[in-house]
Amino acid sequence: MRSYRKELWFETKKRRELINITGTVEACLKESGVEEGLLLCNAMHITASVFVNDDESGLHHDFEEWLEGLAPEKPYSRYRHNGYEDNADAHLKRTIMGREVVVAVTDGKLDVGPWEQIFYGEFDGKRRKRVLVKIIGE
Amino acid sequence: MRSYRKELWFETKKRRELINITGTVEACLKESGVEEGLLLCNAMHITASVFVNDDESGLHHDFEEWLEGLAPEKPYSRYRHNGYEDNADAHLKRTIMGREVVVAVTDGKLDVGPWEQIFYGEFDGKRRKRVLVKIIGE
Amino acid sequence: MRSYRKELWFETKKRRELINITGTVEACLKESGVEEGLLLCNAMHITASVFVNDDESGLHHDFEEWLEGLAPEKPYSRYRHNGYEDNADAHLKRTIMGREVVVAVTDGKLDVGPWEQIFYGEFDGKRRKRVLVKIIGE
Repeated sequence: MRSYRKELWFETKKRRELINITGTVEACLKESGVEEGLLLCNAMHITASVFVNDDESGLHHDFEEWLEGLAPEKPYSRYRHNGYEDNADAHLKRTIMGREVVVAVTDGKLDVGPWEQIFYGEFDGKRRKRVLVKIIGE
Repeated sequence: MRSYRKELWFETKKRRELINITGTVEACLKESGVEEGLLLCNAMHITASVFVNDDESGLHHDFEEWLEGLAPEKPYSRYRHNGYEDNADAHLKRTIMGREVVVAVTDGKLDVGPWEQIFYGEFDGKRRKRVLVKIIGE
Repeated sequence: MRSYRKELWFETKKRRELINITGTVEACLKESGVEEGLLLCNAMHITASVFVNDDESGLHHDFEEWLEGLAPEKPYSRYRHNGYEDNADAHLKRTIMGREVVVAVTDGKLDVGPWEQIFYGEFDGKRRKRVLVKIIGE
C-alpha cells in the first residue's frame, strides 16, 4: 500500500471565499503515484469546508446568500459562541457545506463526473489556514 | 490490495426522487470480492446526492417538504445561477443531503446498522445521471 | 493491509447530546496498530451523527438552537414520519450534521487540525445506540 500526505495553505482576503482547488488536488495525486485508491481532502479548521460543486459564479453568489439566510453572520450577539470570537456563523456554515470529500482514484486520476469540482470554502478567513490531502492505494 | 469500480445509472421520471440503492451496492460489493475495506458511493453529478437514512415513505415526504422549505425550487428568478438553467435549488438541496457515503466493509458485507439504507437522491432528474461505487480492500 | 473494527455504545440521558469521542477514537487507532491509512467513524443509527467541530459549550448551545430552528422537534404532527414514532426531527437534524467522518491516519495518529474534535451527536437518545470505527491501512 502506498500513502501520501500534503497540506495546502490558504489566506483569503475576504471573510468568505470559495476557491477551486481541483487542479492542486490533481497535482497531489500525480505526485503520489497512486493509481487505484481513495483520496481524502478535508479542511483542518472547523470554520472552513472542502466540498464538491459547480464552478459557476452565479451559483457561488447563491451559496453566499443562502448560507447567510440559514446562519447569518450578524448580529454577533445572536450566538453564545461569540464572546472572544465572532465566528459562530462560520462553524454553522461549514457544517452545511461539509468538512471533507472522499474521491475515488482510478487509473491514476480523480474519478469524478464532468462538472464535479473540488472547492475550499472559507467562512472565517483573512488568516492562514490549511487543508489536508491524504491518498491511500497502490 | 483489491480495487473495484462500477457506475450505476439512473433516469428518474420526476424532478425529485429518492431511490433505495442498498441492494445494488451490496451486489457490487459481492462482485468485488472485497472482504475487508472501505466502500465509497457518490453522486457524479452536482445536483444529486448519495446518503444514508430510513426507507420510510412518511419520512421521504418530510424530506421533500423540508428541503423545499430550506431551498425552494421556485421562483426560478430567486437564484442567480438560473439563467440558462433552472436547477440552482437542486445544487443547494444536494448540499444539505451530501454528495457521498463511505461505508465499512467487514466479512464481505456492508457494515451498517439495521435501519441504515443507502439512497440515491435526485433533485434535478428526468435525464440520465450516474453514481460511482468504488471499493478498496482485501 | 491491516483492518480494524470496533463498536462504541452510547446511552444518553437526554434526547439530544453532543459527546466528544476524540479520545476514544484515538484509543481505537492505537489498538489497531495502523500507522498510515484512513479511519472511518460513523453513526450506525439514522437519528444520530458523527461530526468534527469545536469542543466549546457556547457553540454547542448555538448548534442546539440552530438545529431546532431548521428542524423543530415539535409539534410532532408537523412531520408525516411521526405516527408510531416522534423522531422525524432527529432524522433531519442528523442530515444537517452528517453521518460520518473520514480522518487521515499518519504516523499512527489522527491527522487532524488543532481544534478538530470528533463528536457523537445524539438527536433521539435515552436508548442504547452505537457508532462504528473502521480503520484500514498499514
